[in-house]
Amino acid sequence: MSIFMAEMIGTMILIILGNGVVAGVLLNKSKAKDAGWIVITFGWGFAVMVGAYVVGHISGAYLNPALTVGFAVAGKLAWAQVFPMILAQMIGAFLGAVVVWLHYLPHWKETDDQAAKLAVFATGPAIRSSFANLISEIIGTALLVFVLLSFGAKGLVFSDGVQTLAVAFLIVAIGMSLGGTTGYAINPARDLGPRIAHAILPIAGKGSSDWKYAWIPVVGPCIGALLAAWLYMGLF
Amino acid sequence: MSIFMAEMIGTMILIILGNGVVAGVLLNKSKAKDAGWIVITFGWGFAVMVGAYVVGHISGAYLNPALTVGFAVAGKLAWAQVFPMILAQMIGAFLGAVVVWLHYLPHWKETDDQAAKLAVFATGPAIRSSFANLISEIIGTALLVFVLLSFGAKGLVFSDGVQTLAVAFLIVAIGMSLGGTTGYAINPARDLGPRIAHAILPIAGKGSSDWKYAWIPVVGPCIGALLAAWLYMGLF
Amino acid sequence: MSIFMAEMIGTMILIILGNGVVAGVLLNKSKAKDAGWIVITFGWGFAVMVGAYVVGHISGAYLNPALTVGFAVAGKLAWAQVFPMILAQMIGAFLGAVVVWLHYLPHWKETDDQAAKLAVFATGPAIRSSFANLISEIIGTALLVFVLLSFGAKGLVFSDGVQTLAVAFLIVAIGMSLGGTTGYAINPARDLGPRIAHAILPIAGKGSSDWKYAWIPVVGPCIGALLAAWLYMGLF
Amino acid sequence: MSIFMAEMIGTMILIILGNGVVAGVLLNKSKAKDAGWIVITFGWGFAVMVGAYVVGHISGAYLNPALTVGFAVAGKLAWAQVFPMILAQMIGAFLGAVVVWLHYLPHWKETDDQAAKLAVFATGPAIRSSFANLISEIIGTALLVFVLLSFGAKGLVFSDGVQTLAVAFLIVAIGMSLGGTTGYAINPARDLGPRIAHAILPIAGKGSSDWKYAWIPVVGPCIGALLAAWLYMGLF
Repeated sequence: MSIFMAEMIGTMILIILGNGVVAGVLLNKSKAKDAGWIVITFGWGFAVMVGAYVVGHISGAYLNPALTVGFAVAGKLAWAQVFPMILAQMIGAFLGAVVVWLHYLPHWKETDDQAAKLAVFATGPAIRSSFANLISEIIGTALLVFVLLSFGAKGLVFSDGVQTLAVAFLIVAIGMSLGGTTGYAINPARDLGPRIAHAILPIAGKGSSDWKYAWIPVVGPCIGALLAAWLYMGLF
Repeated sequence: MSIFMAEMIGTMILIILGNGVVAGVLLNKSKAKDAGWIVITFGWGFAVMVGAYVVGHISGAYLNPALTVGFAVAGKLAWAQVFPMILAQMIGAFLGAVVVWLHYLPHWKETDDQAAKLAVFATGPAIRSSFANLISEIIGTALLVFVLLSFGAKGLVFSDGVQTLAVAFLIVAIGMSLGGTTGYAINPARDLGPRIAHAILPIAGKGSSDWKYAWIPVVGPCIGALLAAWLYMGLF
Repeated sequence: MSIFMAEMIGTMILIILGNGVVAGVLLNKSKAKDAGWIVITFGWGFAVMVGAYVVGHISGAYLNPALTVGFAVAGKLAWAQVFPMILAQMIGAFLGAVVVWLHYLPHWKETDDQAAKLAVFATGPAIRSSFANLISEIIGTALLVFVLLSFGAKGLVFSDGVQTLAVAFLIVAIGMSLGGTTGYAINPARDLGPRIAHAILPIAGKGSSDWKYAWIPVVGPCIGALLAAWLYMGLF
Repeated sequence: MSIFMAEMIGTMILIILGNGVVAGVLLNKSKAKDAGWIVITFGWGFAVMVGAYVVGHISGAYLNPALTVGFAVAGKLAWAQVFPMILAQMIGAFLGAVVVWLHYLPHWKETDDQAAKLAVFATGPAIRSSFANLISEIIGTALLVFVLLSFGAKGLVFSDGVQTLAVAFLIVAIGMSLGGTTGYAINPARDLGPRIAHAILPIAGKGSSDWKYAWIPVVGPCIGALLAAWLYMGLF
């Protein structure tokens, strides 16, 4: 399997499970309705874990344009791979969102709350403030990228299987600790791909795709990744 | 221990712990009453983990007819083993459900809700729709089988012990993210074996075994497993 | 450190953390008040994990008279070690309960519910029925002992560190799936040691130690362990 | 990277994620609001895990003055390293708290409860009693330090990666089982650093920094660490 296919399929799996857990918790009549933040955060952590186990040995399982750019800036990934990877991640994220729409097909018209239906696909701020929301996405992504750069550099003796569990729990940690403000996109593809799907798909009773917020979960993670890469290079 | 015995005992353990966690959360007067989706999903994940640790080194711990068929189609399991394995899984699932009935013996008559009592044994849809419910079981099982086929193919250096933890969390992930629609049978034996037990056992105040739904958690997982096997063979 | 000391300290740690989590969830004014079954079950699982990591390499970390007897019956532990180990486990469990009483010192008089105060120390049935409660303790312990005997026999390549995590999640699984009926003693020392502490300690406003139930979490686990050992020897 | 930088950055990460999870659960309008003790305890456990994975191979990832002193007393760490490490931990904890303040910037003025705002930074007692609160911090820290000393001494064959997971779950266990009384500082830097940040930062509508309690989460953990080190040396 090519790196392009690997990143596409890995990101698709990430979004099927990641957007899927939000759908389960937010859509009416779902058996997981109101299961809360503990389920949301573990769901996203395991979503990354599953995507990483499936394609990690092929492409490294970046699954995230900001992470891809951060590793390129830090000299750990060839720049020639960056654009194809990001394209693959965007396509995979879009396709994953389509699968989630299909999976929860009869639940959309049972759910009146248009904000909840958008939240299944894309993130939104708890308190709308471009400055504060951007800061939150920068901090969350900078932590993610800095830690993952450190994982790659460490002298620890631990297997790739255990490292992937550690990455899963890192994602859970970021969600639990930093997700309360903007819903922790920390990944441009994770937000933009499904937001496009929300705009295009015939979702029963859907509302706005909130395009005026859409730049924050793209720009914030990219800034955060750059800061993390520079900090990492300065420290090590 | 033979492969037949291993699959039977492994599936029996899976159902004791899996149906057991649903009983704990749904039956009246249980100390785990209303513990919610987080307990249901981790409970099923650890149920698979325990079954897999006990018999994985003997039979591979398929514990699931759809998974068994998917691996045979993908050329990773001899077809001669498929029918005996499925028979063992069905018997094990039935016996496991009998143990759960016995374990929670005084709780059945304390619980008036007949749907809850059936839900301990077999899955049911959040919104009844043969087409949508079938799609849900196909998607959930296809993801399960595709990921497990990938695990078998990977070049990752990680031990069987860690891989079994990863499988446990994969099951948790599927439950959290995709279980809200149909209760994620994703395994014909897990649904049909206990449904037969529900029909036969003298459960206090039981209602219908909902046989008209019973084909979906059998057919959906089989279709999903075939799709996953074909997709896997096409990609790798 | 001797095996006697190891089993005493390991069981003491088990009970500090195990009885501790029940205290946290049940006692008034605790910050963990009403945190629910998810916290109770993970708390006990990690309690076993911590005890096992500390003394596992010295004594095997049985921490449980029923498990000790089961391994002796199955020929995996010398009978000469059984009585000293059980004595050590009983002393350790008693001492652990004393530490929990001390740790939550100002919370006892803030809690009026005498049953809750007893529940911090010892288990009690959701529905009182000697027959059904005994069955529940037999099933839970039989599963525990059978799985742990299987762990010792497997050909899996996984390290002791990972195995201890797996044991932790096994305990979580038994709690989630089978604990709803009797509170899963599955260990005579875990119940009897702290029950003696409840009877002796000057706990503010305490009620009965419910001695008429006390035989069930002693006899049930022993029967369950014997059944598991015989089943294991018959199958392997 | 120097040991000083490693301990500073590791403790900063610990506090970003640790104080962050409390902010997420307590501050108004956070998406994680009221997510409960399960999220608090896993959040702190994973916070330690992330800090330890990033700097463990450089400095040992003590991230805690009490642990640092305990290891020095037990002869496992050179005394010359103790003071610089503690200074680094204090600075890191302070900086981590500043990041949390920034990350949740618009949420402070939405939250009227001044005690909740302090609780994001520093611990406080469930029932105020210097004697009982001190005992609680002593017991929690003694268990932490004793177990970590045992980890370093064991003959178990398990990798550093798995050991770090085990440490994460140990922190979760201490939080679940012993955190209900004082909020488990078990680390002077974790409490004092962020308390100083609370006193200095322009937090909207903040109240008292509760300095009269501040000595307990400093003195208690130090006493606990000494007891654990002496107990460990006596036993091994």
